[in-house]
Amino acid sequence: MGSVRVLRAVNGSSLVWNTKLRSSTVCARAFSAKMSPPSKAVVYEQHGSPDQVVRMVDFPPVEIREKDVCVKMLAAPINPSDINRIEGVYPVKPPVPAVGGYEGVGEVQSVGSAVTGLTPGDWVIPSPPSFGTWQTYIVKEENVWHKINKNVPIEYAATVTVNPLTALRMLEDFVDLNSGDAVVQNGATSIVGQCIIQLAQIRGLHSINVIRDRTEAEEVRENLKKLGADEVYTESQLEVKNVKGFLGDLPEPVLGFNCVGGNSASLVLKFLRQSGTMVTYGGMSKKPIAVSTSSFIFKDLALRGFWLQKWMSLDKAKDCRIMIDYLLGLMREEKLKYEMELVSFDDFPLALEKALGKQRSHPKQVLKF
Amino acid sequence: MGSVRVLRAVNGSSLVWNTKLRSSTVCARAFSAKMSPPSKAVVYEQHGSPDQVVRMVDFPPVEIREKDVCVKMLAAPINPSDINRIEGVYPVKPPVPAVGGYEGVGEVQSVGSAVTGLTPGDWVIPSPPSFGTWQTYIVKEENVWHKINKNVPIEYAATVTVNPLTALRMLEDFVDLNSGDAVVQNGATSIVGQCIIQLAQIRGLHSINVIRDRTEAEEVRENLKKLGADEVYTESQLEVKNVKGFLGDLPEPVLGFNCVGGNSASLVLKFLRQSGTMVTYGGMSKKPIAVSTSSFIFKDLALRGFWLQKWMSLDKAKDCRIMIDYLLGLMREEKLKYEMELVSFDDFPLALEKALGKQRSHPKQVLKF
Repeated sequence: MGSVRVLRAVNGSSLVWNTKLRSSTVCARAFSAKMSPPSKAVVYEQHGSPDQVVRMVDFPPVEIREKDVCVKMLAAPINPSDINRIEGVYPVKPPVPAVGGYEGVGEVQSVGSAVTGLTPGDWVIPSPPSFGTWQTYIVKEENVWHKINKNVPIEYAATVTVNPLTALRMLEDFVDLNSGDAVVQNGATSIVGQCIIQLAQIRGLHSINVIRDRTEAEEVRENLKKLGADEVYTESQLEVKNVKGFLGDLPEPVLGFNCVGGNSASLVLKFLRQSGTMVTYGGMSKKPIAVSTSSFIFKDLALRGFWLQKWMSLDKAKDCRIMIDYLLGLMREEKLKYEMELVSFDDFPLALEKALGKQRSHPKQVLKF
Repeated sequence: MGSVRVLRAVNGSSLVWNTKLRSSTVCARAFSAKMSPPSKAVVYEQHGSPDQVVRMVDFPPVEIREKDVCVKMLAAPINPSDINRIEGVYPVKPPVPAVGGYEGVGEVQSVGSAVTGLTPGDWVIPSPPSFGTWQTYIVKEENVWHKINKNVPIEYAATVTVNPLTALRMLEDFVDLNSGDAVVQNGATSIVGQCIIQLAQIRGLHSINVIRDRTEAEEVRENLKKLGADEVYTESQLEVKNVKGFLGDLPEPVLGFNCVGGNSASLVLKFLRQSGTMVTYGGMSKKPIAVSTSSFIFKDLALRGFWLQKWMSLDKAKDCRIMIDYLLGLMREEKLKYEMELVSFDDFPLALEKALGKQRSHPKQVLKF
């Protein structure tokens, strides 16, 4: 973050000039030091609406110290959680100024003299993520980089850490699921939702999926069924007294996932069987979850929450890297797939606009550097 | 239930005459059999508002078979759950007609020839409860009766099975509590609420208590503090952005209890610490519980429910009887107490009216036979 902090002292247009000045100073001080190329980054200096507070900034070359690895970024997605971080809606706000982005994949450009595990040309992802990934070059110590197999498309490597891992953990951390059990979820078209469908199927689980009403609902239903969804219903289809009739031959789901809130969360609760569990991991409708007293007392439902952040600590890094390799393996075998759109980093404003989804929904936006 | 079932075939005023007729028949068939005294019972023949569907009925003597015990009831409370059973709001409605009441205490009047563990004069409670207790004499097999020590007041023996046991289990079944931990609850003036305060104190736990706004709030606060409450607040006192300021030196509570719903449940949630659990066991406000997405994701709260019914199965009878004896021991030592009002069984309509609390709140109504 060293080179970002200089932003704190400068204003708008003078930034590039100032940082360039600092760059010269650094070069003069350490003439023989190995330096990174200059970098371009998407930066926010204050929290707020992303389309208002982010801008593209030029960073000067930085020194590559003996334990450092200089990585040329290949791809990084724009996730909803990236938007939330910029908005500052998380309980712990990241300090500003900061580079946007959280996950991504890059290629090792050069390494410091004490680096033993990585060589130029390797593909790496930040694991656990701890810095902005929306920049062309990143210099960080070797231990934050996880070397991965190069046999997956960059957009999958760039997106494996957040959404697929969320889906994987949520299927593991709450209920002991047995082959033949069913799960129910709303927001089924999200990347997490699509991963849940596929990971559930791999484990022999059935999935009942709720999507919001839309004109292309039939097409969405077909696509999700191709991924392995057993049933797909729109919210309005489920506006009946007893949703259980929609289960067909499937067992009542023991576990549900909610990333919407409001009425859509209530639909998940209605599907759950006695003593079932609903896990909330998002709130796209921005509406609270309303639960009847009888759901708790007589139906014995349990409501929990999931935040990937607790898996992003250093002490869990080893476990996470094993899971990431597992997920990348599934991606390589095309058992785990989802729609994405690669967009040139230079077109960041356009990708951001699509990611914000103000007009209509778009595939996951992945920046290509 | 044999003698109650005859009600199914009869209408209103002809009931007593019909059951008397049946009584004569029984006597003629088994002239030498040991018979119970005639019994008076509060019966409902259909579900509905208790003050409209219950009425006092005379039952004829019934035969005391060799494994039977005839119990003269001493006392039985009117619990909110009794009201709910009559209203038929539970997911599994008890078959009607039925005698009201669920718990109580009685004295053994006479026993069948094969009864070895009980003798006339013993005090017994139905455990687990499985039949109506609002009647003067009950004949049931020995194994449904749990003999208790006679050194507690009848109103405590009559009420130990439902509310104190609920409080005891809720402190055990959800979170591992350590001495010094805090719990928070709403509906703190209920019998369960008062038991939680006292059982928490016995375990070295602190309690934060929320009561509804009322003119005598100060008096209620003093009474609950005498029972061992650390803090007592009215709902309107807690209408602030951050309730944590009301904790004083107490730790943030790890476990909360909700028997109200609506805004009062939200106050319990606000008090809970990170990763805390709220257990819902009632919904006096008849309002749902609304939970924000961030409560689940960032605060990692868990919401659960408790229904005593799962402890009322035959396979848990032994455990329950041990717990009941433990609670009766605390009552004997006056470490567990709550306000009750003994009312003659003949004044049942008055007691019911008070229990329904339509005008104002009254102490727990306990019928004295």
